[in-house]
Amino acid sequence: MSRSLSPSALAERILAGSTPAIARGITWAESGLPEFRELLALLYPRTGRARITGFTGSPGAGKSTLTAAMARLARKEQKRVGIIAVDPTSPFSGGAILGDRIRMQDLYTDPGVLIRSMATRGQFGGLARATADAVDILDASGFDEILVETVGVGQDEVEVFQLAETCVVVLTPGMGDDIQAIKAGLMEVADIFVVNKSDREGADRVVLEIMQMLEMGEHGEWLPPVLKTIAKDGTGVAALRAEVAKHQEFARGDGFAARRRERVRKRIEAIVQFELLARLRAEGGLGTSLEENVSRVEARNQDPHGAAWELLRKFNKEPHRESDGN
Amino acid sequence: MSRSLSPSALAERILAGSTPAIARGITWAESGLPEFRELLALLYPRTGRARITGFTGSPGAGKSTLTAAMARLARKEQKRVGIIAVDPTSPFSGGAILGDRIRMQDLYTDPGVLIRSMATRGQFGGLARATADAVDILDASGFDEILVETVGVGQDEVEVFQLAETCVVVLTPGMGDDIQAIKAGLMEVADIFVVNKSDREGADRVVLEIMQMLEMGEHGEWLPPVLKTIAKDGTGVAALRAEVAKHQEFARGDGFAARRRERVRKRIEAIVQFELLARLRAEGGLGTSLEENVSRVEARNQDPHGAAWELLRKFNKEPHRESDGN
Repeated sequence: MSRSLSPSALAERILAGSTPAIARGITWAESGLPEFRELLALLYPRTGRARITGFTGSPGAGKSTLTAAMARLARKEQKRVGIIAVDPTSPFSGGAILGDRIRMQDLYTDPGVLIRSMATRGQFGGLARATADAVDILDASGFDEILVETVGVGQDEVEVFQLAETCVVVLTPGMGDDIQAIKAGLMEVADIFVVNKSDREGADRVVLEIMQMLEMGEHGEWLPPVLKTIAKDGTGVAALRAEVAKHQEFARGDGFAARRRERVRKRIEAIVQFELLARLRAEGGLGTSLEENVSRVEARNQDPHGAAWELLRKFNKEPHRESDGN
Repeated sequence: MSRSLSPSALAERILAGSTPAIARGITWAESGLPEFRELLALLYPRTGRARITGFTGSPGAGKSTLTAAMARLARKEQKRVGIIAVDPTSPFSGGAILGDRIRMQDLYTDPGVLIRSMATRGQFGGLARATADAVDILDASGFDEILVETVGVGQDEVEVFQLAETCVVVLTPGMGDDIQAIKAGLMEVADIFVVNKSDREGADRVVLEIMQMLEMGEHGEWLPPVLKTIAKDGTGVAALRAEVAKHQEFARGDGFAARRRERVRKRIEAIVQFELLARLRAEGGLGTSLEENVSRVEARNQDPHGAAWELLRKFNKEPHRESDGN
């Protein structure tokens, strides 16, 4: 592909399902190019068809193996599957040992499967923003199912996870300590719980613990089911796929209207925040003032909040030029 | 304490070391009251004396037990110790089972120790902001050492962790999968590695793995040491305390000037971002426009980036009132 592709030419190729075009589009999204906004404006009306499922859990819970197993089932039904790995320990993101990737060779070489990893670090909300953009690109391009794999601890990861219509939290037996962490961070975003590696001792106890947590917690019309799987040999994966389908129907109904709206709101806000920070840092913008304030705070001649409010006052007076004609 | 305490009256009591005043100050910080800014402006010139150490790692790694052991050693030297728990699984934050807290009874009842937990969820950067403010309050109030405990996965947690002058990453044997996650997320922020529960099988292998990672990675003048501890019975904790002291000397020298500055810069930026988001959401501010944009994006009549940029344009034209006279 030529380097100077226009947004409309790239959009056309993405809509036609071209893999290199999709990869290029996601790279535009990651780099935050102004052209990307033009691209997304062209693609966005064509989104909304794909089913988006998120998988989260601790490293070692078997999320990638489960994601792979889910992808294979979808392929049996001739669905086009996109896999986005935001988890640094995922074989899909290249973080895992070679053996893991070899075991997933069938997916890497299947033309009906597109695998993409996203950087795991970034500025405030940058990762969630780019991942949402990547999902839109795959959606517009005609992928039927999009599987997003993330490590489920931490705010940024929870944000990524919440992009998904259906959020699957993956646990394993023998991780007693993790239950607490999940309680604190993921309870309210989980749509389906999976106890993977359920041939291990203690699986039923974990199932019970989750069900007890669910009983104590609040939930709306959808009561998250708790399923057992052995992703490695496929046990329980078809049942999980059926539950995901059921939830996805539910998620598109009235019961989830508020959540869908909140997802859109957060996404817009994240972009606004990201841009405002970029302007704050810009050379010739507030960048110089910022550095002066940093020096004053370091010398303890000013406190951090005082510095921030001084910048906010300047920010409001500054006539910001737009970075392009959009 | 009366409800209508002025910032200067509260500052006076905090500087005098009053525990209820400190607790009140941290609550002000958490709630983002405008009065808090006045309070911090009064306290900030008195900060910079305390040693701040962060502990991070997976749930179950034994961070709390290690933090408690470190606090006890500091108490033997008559140091005043503040413990801030941002980890939802920590006994200090009330997340753990009762037995854990009973084992730490000595710290809860010691008047030379102040324990505070911080909420683990919040808006962008809100948790890191409030934790930094809490550290300043304890510092100004005369605490000699401040120990901050967090779960080390996720961007928000890493931000909290980076408040500390010395960042201790706690690992355990038999968590092979975690090494990958640490590699991705914590490698560049770790000052000291601890392999806790080192009486378990595989401790030496974990030490070796970390050292290999360190050899491959980049580091400046400070090469992070890798220590073995058994926090439960105190083995290796004195050696850890000595390493922390050594690092803290180093961290106040020229070698870390850029990092200290970056920490201040990020803190100011986080406050600015937080405030800008609050203004964006404010009723009568952009709140109404935001909701209109959300509706358009939901209907796919506008894409999220287009919506964000429309808001940014309005934002720049809006004459923002300040929420107080600061």
